[in-house]
Amino acid sequence: MARRAAVNVWCLGSRAVSLLYGSSFRPLHTSVCNASSKPKAGFKPEKVAVVTKTTRYEFEQQRYRYAGLSEEDLKQLLAMKGSSYSGLLERHNIHTNNVEHIVKSLRKEGIDVRVVKRGEYNEEVVRWANAIISAGGDGTMLLVASKVLSKDKPVVGVNTDPERSEGHLCLPVRYTRAFPEALDKLCRGEFRWLWRQRIRLHLEGTGINPTPVDLHEQQLSLEQHSQAHRITTMDSQRRTGNLQESFTKPSLLPIRSLNEIFIGESLSSRVKLKSFNPHVKLLLHRASYYEISVDDGPWEKQKSSGLSICTGTGSKAWSYNINKLAEQAVEEVLKIGKSQSGLDIPLNQEFIEKVTEKYNESLVFSPDDSRLFYSIREPIVNRVFSSSRQRGFASKVCVRSRCWDACMVVDGGTSFEFNDGAIATISMSEEDQLRTVVLDN
Amino acid sequence: MARRAAVNVWCLGSRAVSLLYGSSFRPLHTSVCNASSKPKAGFKPEKVAVVTKTTRYEFEQQRYRYAGLSEEDLKQLLAMKGSSYSGLLERHNIHTNNVEHIVKSLRKEGIDVRVVKRGEYNEEVVRWANAIISAGGDGTMLLVASKVLSKDKPVVGVNTDPERSEGHLCLPVRYTRAFPEALDKLCRGEFRWLWRQRIRLHLEGTGINPTPVDLHEQQLSLEQHSQAHRITTMDSQRRTGNLQESFTKPSLLPIRSLNEIFIGESLSSRVKLKSFNPHVKLLLHRASYYEISVDDGPWEKQKSSGLSICTGTGSKAWSYNINKLAEQAVEEVLKIGKSQSGLDIPLNQEFIEKVTEKYNESLVFSPDDSRLFYSIREPIVNRVFSSSRQRGFASKVCVRSRCWDACMVVDGGTSFEFNDGAIATISMSEEDQLRTVVLDN
Repeated sequence: MARRAAVNVWCLGSRAVSLLYGSSFRPLHTSVCNASSKPKAGFKPEKVAVVTKTTRYEFEQQRYRYAGLSEEDLKQLLAMKGSSYSGLLERHNIHTNNVEHIVKSLRKEGIDVRVVKRGEYNEEVVRWANAIISAGGDGTMLLVASKVLSKDKPVVGVNTDPERSEGHLCLPVRYTRAFPEALDKLCRGEFRWLWRQRIRLHLEGTGINPTPVDLHEQQLSLEQHSQAHRITTMDSQRRTGNLQESFTKPSLLPIRSLNEIFIGESLSSRVKLKSFNPHVKLLLHRASYYEISVDDGPWEKQKSSGLSICTGTGSKAWSYNINKLAEQAVEEVLKIGKSQSGLDIPLNQEFIEKVTEKYNESLVFSPDDSRLFYSIREPIVNRVFSSSRQRGFASKVCVRSRCWDACMVVDGGTSFEFNDGAIATISMSEEDQLRTVVLDN
Repeated sequence: MARRAAVNVWCLGSRAVSLLYGSSFRPLHTSVCNASSKPKAGFKPEKVAVVTKTTRYEFEQQRYRYAGLSEEDLKQLLAMKGSSYSGLLERHNIHTNNVEHIVKSLRKEGIDVRVVKRGEYNEEVVRWANAIISAGGDGTMLLVASKVLSKDKPVVGVNTDPERSEGHLCLPVRYTRAFPEALDKLCRGEFRWLWRQRIRLHLEGTGINPTPVDLHEQQLSLEQHSQAHRITTMDSQRRTGNLQESFTKPSLLPIRSLNEIFIGESLSSRVKLKSFNPHVKLLLHRASYYEISVDDGPWEKQKSSGLSICTGTGSKAWSYNINKLAEQAVEEVLKIGKSQSGLDIPLNQEFIEKVTEKYNESLVFSPDDSRLFYSIREPIVNRVFSSSRQRGFASKVCVRSRCWDACMVVDGGTSFEFNDGAIATISMSEEDQLRTVVLDN
C-alpha cells in the first residue's frame, strides 16, 4: 500500500516530491520508489545474449601467459604472493556454474542463447539480441550497458558471484541460483521497467582528429599516444592549411555513461628517468586544474583531485564514496558543534550512527531522475584558488581543462584525453535512457 | 610571551600536550609552536646549491620539441588551447628573476653557489653543498629533500612564484624579493632549526630484483615495465634455483618521505584495445584492495580508493585535502543533528564557518611530531568489506597489497610497484629527520 502511494507521489515528478520533502538536497532513497512502469504484457525475448565477465583466475592466467607458465608454476607464483590459487579457481567455478545455470534456464524456455565473453561483446551482438543479460558483477553490467545506445533494448544484470560482488546494478542475489523464477516473472509481466537516465558527452577543443592513430599496438604508452596524435594532427593541419579546424566543433561522443563521468589528472605522466633502481618510476601525481560552469552559470577556476558528475544510478557508486562520511567524522563535527554552541548534543554511538546514516542516505537519488549530480573531490582551497559549492544538482555542467595530462573516465572503464583547452559539456537526454528490469525481491 | 609558553608546553612532549588539550585527536595547529631549537651561533654556509624548478613555459617548450615547433608555432598552439603564451612566459621570467636575486645575494656574501636545474640535481650535489636552497614551489622542495638523507644538511625553501604557488614548505613570501634579509638573519642566528620528521619504508614480498631493468627507455609503458621485470625475475630465479629468495627479505628503501606515502591502484592498467577511435583508451580504474595492521594490531581487509600515511609536515598537504570538510557538509551534518535531537543547533553562516574551521584545524599537527597519521580515502563499506577507524595516529603501519596494478607514491613524485602480495612497513626514525629553517615572518 505504502509503496503504491509512494509511486503515485513520485509520478508527480521529482520536483514536486522535493517540495513535499522540504529540501531539494534531500532526495528520496532509491529503494523507496522508482518511477518505473508496469509492462503491458509479459516479456519473452526470442534471442538473448549472455555477456560474461573475466574472472580473476582467467586474468592471472592471461597475465603470465607470456612467461609460458605451467598451471603448477602459476599455482606456486600465486602462493608466493600470498594469493590463493585454489580460492581463485573456486570463485571462477562458482561464476562458471552460475552462467551455465542461466544459459540452461533460458534454453529450456526455447530461447536462442549466445554466450559472449567480455572481450567479444560488440555492436553486432547488441543488434542480434532482443535482450542482453550481463553475467558478472557491476563492472560487467557497465560494459554491457556501454554498447546499448537504444532505449528499447532491455538489459538485465545477474550477479554471478554474490559473495564477492556488491551487484547493485544486478537482480537481487536470490535469483542467481533461481533464475527460472526470474524468467517466469518476466514472462508473466510480474516486474517493472526502470529506465535509467544516462549522461551524454560533447567534447571540443582538444583536436579530436579523424585521422586514426593505430591503437592495436597495445604497448604504446600514454605519452606515445599523445605524441603520435599530435604529430598527425599538426601534419594534417599543415597540409590542409587549416590550423584552426579541429579545435572548433563540439563532437557528441558515441558513448553514454550509466554511472558517472570522472575528470582528473592521470597518474601516468612520465618524466625521463635517470635511476638505477628498476622499481622507481617517476610519476607526477598532480592536482587537477579546470574551470567549471554549472547550468550556464559563470566560469569558476578550480583545483581539486578531480570532478565527478553522476546519474541517479551512479549516486550509489563512486560519487557515494567520494561524498559519504565516516561515523568518526560525524562524531567530530558534533563534538565541535557541542563545544562551540554549549548545547548538550548527544554523542552516543546510536545517535552518531543515526546522523551518519541520514547524511549518507541523502547522497543517493533515483536512477530515473533526469538531473546530474556533480561533486568536487578534495577541493583545494587556498590563497590561490577558491570554490563555492562543493556539490549539487544540475542539468548541465561544462568543464574546461587546464590539466597537463588528464583524462575523462566514463563508468570507470573508458577514458578520453582531456587536456589543456579541451571543453566538455555534460548533460542528459531522455533518448539515452537504458531499459532495465526491477523484480521484487 | 604566549608563544614562549607554548614552546615550553610543547617541549613537555606531544603526549603531555595532548593530555593538556584533552583529546589525542586534537593536536596543536602547526603555527602555534614548533619544537625547534635556537642555534648556538649564526649559520653561514660556504657552499650552497640552488636547485631550480622547471617552469610551465619550459615544460611546454620541451613537450613540443619533437614536433620541431618554432617559438611562433608554440605561441599559436598555446593560444588555440586557450592558454596564454605571454602568461606562461611572464611567470617564467618572474621565477628566473627571483632565482637571480637569490644567487646574487648569496655571492655577495662570498658564498660559493652552484645553480642546478631539477633534472641535474643528484647525490653529488648534495655531498658538495653545505646547505641547499630550493628555488621553486613545494614540489621542488620535496624533490630537494628527497635526496638529502642526512639530518645534518640544512635545506631552505624559497617560493619563486608566490602568486601561483602555495609554498607552505618555503620561507614566508616576503623573503623572496628580500633574500638578503633572510641571509642576514641566518648569519646572526635569528632563526630556529626545525627538524621535520620523515617516513621510512620497508618493502618485501614483491620480488625486488637486483637485476636492473633498463629504464632509460622512457617510452616503456607501465605494463611493459612490469612484464619485463617479471621475466627477468623469474629467469634469474630459475637460474639460481632460488624461487623463494626475493620474496622473503624486507628491504629498507633508500628514500625518505617528507609529506606522505600514498598507496593506490594505478589508473594505467591497460587492456588490449579493439577500438577505431584514437582517443578511447581502456583504463581500468579500480578500487584498491589491501590489508592493514596499525601498531602491530590485527590485520584488517579493506577496500578504498587509497590509503594515505603522512607526517606532521604532510598533514597540511594531500592528507589535509583528503580529510577536510567543506562548509556545505558540516552544515548538512548539523542540520540532521538538529532535526534528530530536537535541539536548537545554530545554523547561521558564522557558526558553520567556525565549526568547519575547527574541524579542519584538528587535522594538522606539528612537523616534528614523531607520529604517523593514516587516512583511508573513500573507504568502501558494504556487504563484503568493513572497516573500523577511518583515520588515526600510529607509530607503525603495515600494509599488504591485494591490488592488481598498484603503486606506492612517495611525496607525489616517486612511485614503487606495490602489487598483490607485497608488504610495506611504514615507520619513522629520528635519524631520518630533515633539517630546515624557521624564520619569523
